[in-house]
Amino acid sequence: MSKSIDKIKKIYLDHASSALSLSANPGAIHVLGVKEKSKLENSRKNISKILDCHSDEIIFTSGATESNNLAILGLIHPTLRPPIGKGRVGERSQLPHIVTTNIEHASVLEVCKHLEKTKQIQVTYVEVEERGIVDPRKIKKALRPNTVLVSVMYANNEIGTIQPIQEIAKEIRHYRKNLTRLRHPLLGKERVGERCIFPFFHTDATQAVNYLPINVKKLGVDLMSFNAAKIYGPKGVGVLYVKRNTPIKKIMFGGDQEGGLRPGTENVAGAVALAYALEITQKMKDKEARRLEKLKDYFLNKLVHSNVGADFGIRINGDLKNRLPNNVNITIPNMPSDLLVIELSARGIMASAKSACKSGDGKDSHVILALQKKDGLPVKALASAGSLRFSLGRGTNKKDIDYTIKSLAEILQKLKKWY
Amino acid sequence: MSKSIDKIKKIYLDHASSALSLSANPGAIHVLGVKEKSKLENSRKNISKILDCHSDEIIFTSGATESNNLAILGLIHPTLRPPIGKGRVGERSQLPHIVTTNIEHASVLEVCKHLEKTKQIQVTYVEVEERGIVDPRKIKKALRPNTVLVSVMYANNEIGTIQPIQEIAKEIRHYRKNLTRLRHPLLGKERVGERCIFPFFHTDATQAVNYLPINVKKLGVDLMSFNAAKIYGPKGVGVLYVKRNTPIKKIMFGGDQEGGLRPGTENVAGAVALAYALEITQKMKDKEARRLEKLKDYFLNKLVHSNVGADFGIRINGDLKNRLPNNVNITIPNMPSDLLVIELSARGIMASAKSACKSGDGKDSHVILALQKKDGLPVKALASAGSLRFSLGRGTNKKDIDYTIKSLAEILQKLKKWY
Repeated sequence: MSKSIDKIKKIYLDHASSALSLSANPGAIHVLGVKEKSKLENSRKNISKILDCHSDEIIFTSGATESNNLAILGLIHPTLRPPIGKGRVGERSQLPHIVTTNIEHASVLEVCKHLEKTKQIQVTYVEVEERGIVDPRKIKKALRPNTVLVSVMYANNEIGTIQPIQEIAKEIRHYRKNLTRLRHPLLGKERVGERCIFPFFHTDATQAVNYLPINVKKLGVDLMSFNAAKIYGPKGVGVLYVKRNTPIKKIMFGGDQEGGLRPGTENVAGAVALAYALEITQKMKDKEARRLEKLKDYFLNKLVHSNVGADFGIRINGDLKNRLPNNVNITIPNMPSDLLVIELSARGIMASAKSACKSGDGKDSHVILALQKKDGLPVKALASAGSLRFSLGRGTNKKDIDYTIKSLAEILQKLKKWY
Repeated sequence: MSKSIDKIKKIYLDHASSALSLSANPGAIHVLGVKEKSKLENSRKNISKILDCHSDEIIFTSGATESNNLAILGLIHPTLRPPIGKGRVGERSQLPHIVTTNIEHASVLEVCKHLEKTKQIQVTYVEVEERGIVDPRKIKKALRPNTVLVSVMYANNEIGTIQPIQEIAKEIRHYRKNLTRLRHPLLGKERVGERCIFPFFHTDATQAVNYLPINVKKLGVDLMSFNAAKIYGPKGVGVLYVKRNTPIKKIMFGGDQEGGLRPGTENVAGAVALAYALEITQKMKDKEARRLEKLKDYFLNKLVHSNVGADFGIRINGDLKNRLPNNVNITIPNMPSDLLVIELSARGIMASAKSACKSGDGKDSHVILALQKKDGLPVKALASAGSLRFSLGRGTNKKDIDYTIKSLAEILQKLKKWY
């Protein structure tokens, strides 16, 4: 039928569902709706193949911020709150407990802080080590019988450090296994048979998708967030991978789209673009990672071992090895990074002072502060300087790096009179 | 500077903020970020001019569903919950109270039901009259000292009936005025001086924007939702108008975008497209409304006064006068509307059975049921039939209507053997 229908003149009388007939509402049961639905489901399927999961485990959202919110708020729903006064000996509290790190993205940290402030959960913020990597044993130590969720980002957005997701997943699996013989402090119906399903493991993979493996089975995660905008796709569309049987609930209400987890007419064009961007990313991932790794090392060497590097005491933030191949993050003591970004911009070079999401708010980077705390270094000069992030990409070449280093040297020479 | 910078070669080293340099992160402080920010703010400004409001009162969201969720969940935040046991004599309860109607879109009704179920609010669902219009006096009667919000849609998505928004706003203003001398039962800090600011008035204008005036001052609303997809723009972007001094809080957490009400990197392309779609809609609104009004009346006359209309007892759902000019909604007793949609689709005609958002879920339309309840008519035959919606648009002409009526007659003749 779909072949013959293509030849028939279409009379579109469903403008109230979606004004544009060319992108009909995928919830409509007429042929144009069915077509849209199949585009959506094809995209979902293609993404699920890359992640090595079921296609019904892919939930489309409006971006990584919403994905992170859904992962956390969606797991901390009222049915998880244990009855008041049922705390038992040896357990600190019966409020749901979350374990995360102190260098997560704001869309994880702020959700945790909100839930903590409104007394809905308890949170342990595990401190990362001095190079910006979390110790899986510290995550393990933080786990409690009432821990519902562990949320650790795959790669940091500011300093590019890569977290040991597989090791953390292993610790969680062991803990879960040992917990089976305990009566779980949270509601019984959240258990599957005699096996305890808590704690769940969420990772924000937004920065990792371009360069790192994202097979969810191998990673061992239950929930994973990412978006299209960081993999050369459009803004306003993201994904939350949700492993089957995860007792997550929607955080917005309306229609039954996305397996009941995300209401609202589906952004089909966004989903198609995300799937396409992910396929391309996946194909070029290894080669591009190797290319950028070299370029990044060239950049870092030039920066640190140059006269400029020595003169201004340039410091590299974050681990040098377990790091995204496209991330260069430095601190230049006593030089305000916002000013450096503007000076670089005037020379045509687009860099970032801490994360763009939080820039301009006048606050220090919580990530850089976390490193400095561990470092035990003269915090004052560094904190006032903030950090400068260069994140390389598909169009970046050696000439760009040379020009950037030259420009930075000029800017520093110019500014040193005042700072 | 911006002129000369346009000529300079750009070296984009901010891929972690946004992979595509052509749509940089509007939160970035380099020149490409500033450019994106200004595109976003121009769009906001253009929309605010059309709505006759301040540009900081325009909040971009991922669509009308999120806008409705933000309007309601955002107003029912924990600080509004009064201390337990502080109920006073003569007031029914100290839980926040919402007044809405029984024919709202699911993204309003489901939010209310969720908040009611989790004992966070009380709700009064005012029943519409038999033609699908709510009586403003009944809204007035439902108001209580603890009413935080009144939410009434501007035009219904299924039957196109237009609600008396201005009259309802007037009733609320009067109620608010009389309330100033009462001590408000909810938190004192939500008052502005001695004037009580509750209840707030929200309208879901998603279906109205194409054809009705949307000057928020003249309408008298405090919050108004709509999206781009219904005005020939893309999916995945919407607006919530929030009047200044409305004590609304964000429902997702992360960055400080959109005046702190909506975190996440802004979907600039979506915002620009929405603003553009709204400008076009505004320009052609009056002329298009008149054109479709005639076409709709032609359609309805042909349907009801034809032999087919008489033979099958076709009934028009919803008021004939206070109705969107593009909406035709009928019930054909004993004929399942899902089947009719599929038969029409096979002939190239795209129509809808109840609302597309809820189609395929096997449930009856709550809107049609609400009308039938008031009508006192033989519900069984009608309910099993459901309703058939034709929503006309910019491309619809008289020939389309003629072909549709002819096709519907053929389909009904064919099906009558079985139903």
